[in-house]
Amino acid sequence: MALVAGIDRQQAAPPRSGIERLVDLASADLEAVNAIILEHMQSEVDLIPQLAGHIIAAGGKRLRPMLTLASARLCNYRGRRHLALAACVEFIHTATLLHDDVVDESDLRRGMATANALWGNKSSVLVGDFLFSRAFQLMVADGSLEVLRILSDASATIAEGEVLQLATSNDTETTEASYLRVISAKTAALFAAACRIGAVVAERPDAEELALERYGRCFGTAFQLVDDVLDYSARQAELGKAIGDDFREGKITLPVVLAFARGDAAERNFWRRCLEDLEQDDRDLDRALDLLVRHNALEDAMERARQYAAEALAALEVFDESSERRALSDVIGFCVDRAY
Amino acid sequence: MALVAGIDRQQAAPPRSGIERLVDLASADLEAVNAIILEHMQSEVDLIPQLAGHIIAAGGKRLRPMLTLASARLCNYRGRRHLALAACVEFIHTATLLHDDVVDESDLRRGMATANALWGNKSSVLVGDFLFSRAFQLMVADGSLEVLRILSDASATIAEGEVLQLATSNDTETTEASYLRVISAKTAALFAAACRIGAVVAERPDAEELALERYGRCFGTAFQLVDDVLDYSARQAELGKAIGDDFREGKITLPVVLAFARGDAAERNFWRRCLEDLEQDDRDLDRALDLLVRHNALEDAMERARQYAAEALAALEVFDESSERRALSDVIGFCVDRAY
Repeated sequence: MALVAGIDRQQAAPPRSGIERLVDLASADLEAVNAIILEHMQSEVDLIPQLAGHIIAAGGKRLRPMLTLASARLCNYRGRRHLALAACVEFIHTATLLHDDVVDESDLRRGMATANALWGNKSSVLVGDFLFSRAFQLMVADGSLEVLRILSDASATIAEGEVLQLATSNDTETTEASYLRVISAKTAALFAAACRIGAVVAERPDAEELALERYGRCFGTAFQLVDDVLDYSARQAELGKAIGDDFREGKITLPVVLAFARGDAAERNFWRRCLEDLEQDDRDLDRALDLLVRHNALEDAMERARQYAAEALAALEVFDESSERRALSDVIGFCVDRAY
Repeated sequence: MALVAGIDRQQAAPPRSGIERLVDLASADLEAVNAIILEHMQSEVDLIPQLAGHIIAAGGKRLRPMLTLASARLCNYRGRRHLALAACVEFIHTATLLHDDVVDESDLRRGMATANALWGNKSSVLVGDFLFSRAFQLMVADGSLEVLRILSDASATIAEGEVLQLATSNDTETTEASYLRVISAKTAALFAAACRIGAVVAERPDAEELALERYGRCFGTAFQLVDDVLDYSARQAELGKAIGDDFREGKITLPVVLAFARGDAAERNFWRRCLEDLEQDDRDLDRALDLLVRHNALEDAMERARQYAAEALAALEVFDESSERRALSDVIGFCVDRAY
């Protein structure tokens, strides 16, 4: 499993920005979290560690568990409980990804073959269930009913959000409010819970717990908004990253909601054909990009992201200035700046 | 939602046998459980209660929650906690069914269209996740870490068992030991947990908790063995019930394990073609039935079921004679006698 750079980087390096400050701050803890993840994804049934290892090793930035780690440290927590709970957060996220792969019949995630494509639908569903159960076993071992409540509530909300997304997919009449309800549930709920449990283990007052909850929720919303913009980003295309996945699946994201609302009858027919009927040819993605730019839809979606990012920043104001608070501030900038 | 008959049946009815004694005993409690199930499967996302209602209403005998109810009563429990926990057990079972439908690409369960066939893979996975999360929310509201431990352990074991079943499916070299490991995990673990939590809420000594665990585990194993025999049962076929589902899917159950081990080279080639290569024609199921009977495989699998049933009965001996103990004994007979 890939580990992030050790803490010795912290001494020599120049002032950092974006996600690097968070990575530096969390790196020693994150090694411990990775060890817990590795230990608890084991099973006598070989296919489980194989498949779980594939998706967890591919595992991107470990953003959600890092939020738990940094939130606990922001609250001056000095114990070890946040490590296993950060692993729980990653297990729940991974289970969601595995089930989402089944769901979307997507073939590629992060440029790698998905577990689904390699091992089939069946395995992805069941290994996801296993990791989800493991998350609850780890929480039970931790012993906090409050943490169990926060993460079981988040899990139910995520599932509701995914079902709602399904119900609105291919529906060009989706409103901005529906879209926000979906991303608030499917993405922001876990960000919020990941941050909040940091305050819970540190036994901080409700005001700090709720501030971290609000920070996570707004950050998660901004994060998903940016992700949805990136799927149509010319800059992404220049970097050789895949774009247009959402378009090909007929997913209705905010850029499309805005462009559809601002389009004329011919444009709306275009969106309906491509996203409701999924009748698309090679030039349709270019036409979609053109319409999104013409109606300022990408820029306006980014503006919404910036508003949520500002609210996330404001939520941190109840905390004194510290390197943890700076790291949690900077990572928002990193997230929003990904788009450029 | 279909409710079982009210308790007034209990007074007028003659001495009952099989599952009826258990149903009579549990019926008032079961109405309360059904109300909890109905309340907690609600969501603002309409598709969730629609789909969950479909599978829960179809929901068969409510055998697992009845085991929780009867176990609690056997332990002289007089409170209300067993009701919500019985609902948890049913939610976990339902989530497993929904995910199993995706997994097996089965089209029919209990003679009704599966949720999967009606609403698609995506919805079945996500609504299963929702019900699973709801189960944990209910457990958190109950507040017992011991119950949370038992049911999160059972959930992880079920997922492991389902993955192991996947790894052994279409493999005619599967041993009886592997088969028993699969059914112990995928079926018996939830029966065991359902019974055990009855003793936990009643705060009974470990000996009784473990006796109910053993009862549930052995009963669950017998139940699955009988289920696997029924899939090849001539009596089932006479009753107009579907048989041969396992055969068509290439599932390796004990009757096949025994017939394969006892068969000659030509017979083994037959099993390999049908169950590994899934090359089957219309007469192959009849030939399979013929081989199973000739090698006494169905009768011997039933004999294994009877052994587990006897062990389940023996586990009840730590309890004094009572109508609850009689009901828990009789339901084993009902389960084993289904085969005839």
